[in-house]
Amino acid sequence: MNAEAQRSATAPSRPTLDDIRAAHKRIAPHIHRTPVVTSASLDALAGAHLYFKCENLQRSGSFKMRGASNAVFSLSDTEAARGVVTHSSGNHAAALALAAKERGIRAWIVMPSDAPQVKRRAVEAFGAEVVLCEPTLASREATAAEVLRRTGAVLIHPYDDERIIAGQGTAALELIEEIPDLDFVLAPISGGGLLSGTAIAAKNLRPAIRVIGCEPANADDAARSLAAAKIEPAATTKTIADGLRATLAPRTFEILRRLVDQVALVSEEEIVSAMRLLWERLKLVVEPSGAVAAAPALFRQIGADGKNVGIILSGGNLDLDSLPFRPTAPRQPLPTER
Amino acid sequence: MNAEAQRSATAPSRPTLDDIRAAHKRIAPHIHRTPVVTSASLDALAGAHLYFKCENLQRSGSFKMRGASNAVFSLSDTEAARGVVTHSSGNHAAALALAAKERGIRAWIVMPSDAPQVKRRAVEAFGAEVVLCEPTLASREATAAEVLRRTGAVLIHPYDDERIIAGQGTAALELIEEIPDLDFVLAPISGGGLLSGTAIAAKNLRPAIRVIGCEPANADDAARSLAAAKIEPAATTKTIADGLRATLAPRTFEILRRLVDQVALVSEEEIVSAMRLLWERLKLVVEPSGAVAAAPALFRQIGADGKNVGIILSGGNLDLDSLPFRPTAPRQPLPTER
Repeated sequence: MNAEAQRSATAPSRPTLDDIRAAHKRIAPHIHRTPVVTSASLDALAGAHLYFKCENLQRSGSFKMRGASNAVFSLSDTEAARGVVTHSSGNHAAALALAAKERGIRAWIVMPSDAPQVKRRAVEAFGAEVVLCEPTLASREATAAEVLRRTGAVLIHPYDDERIIAGQGTAALELIEEIPDLDFVLAPISGGGLLSGTAIAAKNLRPAIRVIGCEPANADDAARSLAAAKIEPAATTKTIADGLRATLAPRTFEILRRLVDQVALVSEEEIVSAMRLLWERLKLVVEPSGAVAAAPALFRQIGADGKNVGIILSGGNLDLDSLPFRPTAPRQPLPTER
Repeated sequence: MNAEAQRSATAPSRPTLDDIRAAHKRIAPHIHRTPVVTSASLDALAGAHLYFKCENLQRSGSFKMRGASNAVFSLSDTEAARGVVTHSSGNHAAALALAAKERGIRAWIVMPSDAPQVKRRAVEAFGAEVVLCEPTLASREATAAEVLRRTGAVLIHPYDDERIIAGQGTAALELIEEIPDLDFVLAPISGGGLLSGTAIAAKNLRPAIRVIGCEPANADDAARSLAAAKIEPAATTKTIADGLRATLAPRTFEILRRLVDQVALVSEEEIVSAMRLLWERLKLVVEPSGAVAAAPALFRQIGADGKNVGIILSGGNLDLDSLPFRPTAPRQPLPTER
């Protein structure tokens, strides 16, 4: 990080480290404190000491429960009584539904009509009401606006929201509490909420840490945007990492510009290889998006030789009927050892 | 447990609870203290409070590291200098290889020539020497005997050994330390080492606990043996739970007779369904043998309504290229929630 970034890292833009600490206190009864796991064989492969923060073991199956519960439990009683609404086909949908259930309020989730049945069922099982829309951004936003008008509920955006970012930052807060001497921290980038919260927590707790955002090369909007110094779309969003297809918002873009040292791009083959290694060696079910932040460390792409590297495994929700493993995939020579 | 069993539970046959405690102290530097995890959605399915002891997260990928390291670190320096030998194509092979590596001694592992390449590589990666034999029990035993003669090494049997049983009992010791008010504890049965150690720990720490051994209906030698009051072979060993095909030894048979309350038989379909539920809800990679002890609780077959049930997930080693999940499998209605 350069001198300018270091100065601005401590500037009082929101959320602050104190906001993240307050979020942690607020959501503690509603989340799991997830374990940090290690593997001798993966350390040998990476040539570094890897510390995996297991948000795949978080309630609702991803880190999204942190932000969603912080947002929901930040509402006043009057606001909360109106219920909450969001548009999402993925992990934020399930997390917001669960957080609303925990607070005992209503939730409406706008989902595209082509969302997987399994995700729709998850949202419904948490007691939320699914409102279907066409699978386009325009239809999503129009439908959400219509639901807002009709219900008077409060919109909880998946990432363009201070309370969400503060909540997501609690994963890194816990990780650094447990492993204070990290040299690197890696998190995936979609809309940038997790990486924003991670960077704020990490740079304030440990200014010398390198914060690396990781995204599929096939959905590289953050790399393009940071290079161009303005928000740019990805060239494609054709990636197995279905959770990483969103685009930065102005709020997250500004935070990443200030605090992120590097964006690492990960190929589709690397995503699947990393995912397979995590399943084999850690015995953990990690979804493709969740494996993206592991790949640059596992495949020695970040110059972390001998260093302590924190990696946020963001989620574990995927369809076991369509796994990407193939009998023709190259076999790994090392045994299971952790 | 009847009165006779209660009396004999405290009789001084070996290993004793104190042996298990001593084993725990001995092996603590060489094993992981594995987590105990819970899932609200699995509790709802089971109608009980389930506590999963995650031996799939144990070093070498299964509970076998507990017994193997207890045996290896129980050897005198003179014995240890001779090295160790065993015959196994599975988790005991990898665990003994790793335990020997930790002590810095040689290990010879007799494996059938048709053992999966991945398992052979695991053993070799831990530095052990693989000695191939024909895939018959006679060839295994003859080859092991030949290696013993040739090398003077010490035989470490996979389960017919007090030190092994004491080591395996440390998983239940940790589980009951963490969750003292268990009403049931479930463990899979193969040669009976894990269940023997589990039963000794559990019945001595908590005499009212019900100890349930679980085995595939397609490899039902323990159920047959306990019913016949003598060791009987299984009718078949055609099961996906490849780790549960061994037969009780006199030593384990006697312990199970005294201390096990019930043997639950699990169908092949139930093994796969239980495994799938564990992967989906716990986000844990559990091998088929490891899922066998979960099935009777998940599918409400043990009369545990509202009770506290400990389940030992014994291992997580399997080939990701040949998973049993099929798109035609019945989908589970509940979401991921823990």
